[in-house]
Amino acid sequence: MGNIGEFVKTADYKSEKHVPVIECPSGLKKGEASDVVVSVGKEIAHPNTTEHFISWIALYFKPEDGNIYNLGRAEFLSHGESVKGANEGPAYTDPVACFRVKLEEKGKLVAVSYCNIHGLWESEVDVSF
Amino acid sequence: MGNIGEFVKTADYKSEKHVPVIECPSGLKKGEASDVVVSVGKEIAHPNTTEHFISWIALYFKPEDGNIYNLGRAEFLSHGESVKGANEGPAYTDPVACFRVKLEEKGKLVAVSYCNIHGLWESEVDVSF
Amino acid sequence: MGNIGEFVKTADYKSEKHVPVIECPSGLKKGEASDVVVSVGKEIAHPNTTEHFISWIALYFKPEDGNIYNLGRAEFLSHGESVKGANEGPAYTDPVACFRVKLEEKGKLVAVSYCNIHGLWESEVDVSF
Amino acid sequence: MGNIGEFVKTADYKSEKHVPVIECPSGLKKGEASDVVVSVGKEIAHPNTTEHFISWIALYFKPEDGNIYNLGRAEFLSHGESVKGANEGPAYTDPVACFRVKLEEKGKLVAVSYCNIHGLWESEVDVSF
Ligand SMILES: [Fe+3]
Ligand SMILES: [Fe+3]
Ligand SMILES: [Fe+3]
Ligand SMILES: [Fe+3]
Repeated sequence: MGNIGEFVKTADYKSEKHVPVIECPSGLKKGEASDVVVSVGKEIAHPNTTEHFISWIALYFKPEDGNIYNLGRAEFLSHGESVKGANEGPAYTDPVACFRVKLEEKGKLVAVSYCNIHGLWESEVDVSF
Repeated sequence: MGNIGEFVKTADYKSEKHVPVIECPSGLKKGEASDVVVSVGKEIAHPNTTEHFISWIALYFKPEDGNIYNLGRAEFLSHGESVKGANEGPAYTDPVACFRVKLEEKGKLVAVSYCNIHGLWESEVDVSF
Repeated sequence: MGNIGEFVKTADYKSEKHVPVIECPSGLKKGEASDVVVSVGKEIAHPNTTEHFISWIALYFKPEDGNIYNLGRAEFLSHGESVKGANEGPAYTDPVACFRVKLEEKGKLVAVSYCNIHGLWESEVDVSF
Repeated sequence: MGNIGEFVKTADYKSEKHVPVIECPSGLKKGEASDVVVSVGKEIAHPNTTEHFISWIALYFKPEDGNIYNLGRAEFLSHGESVKGANEGPAYTDPVACFRVKLEEKGKLVAVSYCNIHGLWESEVDVSF
């Protein structure tokens, strides 16, 4: 085991705005396309400014047996920047990602998010059918 | 104007499975967080196998005045690969992305998708409030 | 042909700092691993600040016959941001990417770069052995 | 501390082909642009086939004091895929990334790489001037 894990924080999303929240609005069904929504700031909104924003969210699946899979990753790239100056632009992208996945085994979903000034955060949910 | 545009194809998504479809289920409201869903294969499913899959979808916003913004990008990374062999793995990610955006000006949304063997495809919708 | 190409600018990199420069220091050899370096700001440096930076560079290969391939993409994610404020942070990533590729056919390399406030830019070089 | 760290493996790159190798050919100088090359398979080549490949490498900087920064990330997207079938295509991207960074503080560089069937791997080097 390496060290990157030491630098990935977690907490209760209800009190810590950086923690990604994993939701499966229609449940996860074995071998069927299922939507997984991952958001940051569900309970306490995270800032979205040119200087401070969520940069990306990645979703992983760790089957009970076998190596971890990176299911997907969403980048949030617009944060009010503009030739007129910071926070003067016409476009902002908020930290919500959805992934449509088909999983054939039990295991865990792990979401990792990255704030450009507060680092790496994670959360997880069990996958059981 | 450069040349990459020559290599990005478009068509009617109802007859061509590669074309990204842009949908705003609750509409786009000026300056308010609005969901934009971009999917490939809405009418005719695209394959999702270890050998042939949609790799990513990017979403751009071109305001009427001003430069284009890359709002976000979603990567689809699991396609049935496994130590057991191609298409034997427990995880598949389908080509659906959602972006929660706040737009302050009129313009166009442009989605670009990439198939690992059929190249670049695009579609667009107008943004007017 | 779609519209994204209309929004991708090009120019002479010697007078326009946004244009990506494609270099193959040891040449491109058919079927052999060859390094392709793509940089923005080679002649006139581009700013790298929290408010204005090059966000990513993507490299494509268009074989003479056949669809375009996205060889790779590099993201530049640190631009001086910090909990202390913009441009007070300890880390900056400059817009230089390298790709080690093996190409079996003639065609074109096309690089696309994205500035967070000045949009999309491209350049290309021929691949001939 | 969360759990993703449990799923990131490390080892000696000389005996384990997945471990990313971090090299700074000209050294790291405080506050000066310095090249960091990260590669997988330096001693024992990793396969690069349609079914088995290195998908991406990410580079992080953890200053002694303060949160971790994601300096950059490189995606390797072509692995011989083709409309003719797996491993019949004209393009392959090998797992080598370079990052040009400017670091103002001591700390650690941490590289993470992802194999599409063997999961997450990491290595690190100290940053001291
Ligand atoms: Fe934050
Ligand atoms: Fe296709
Ligand atoms: Fe610029
Ligand atoms: Fe492997």
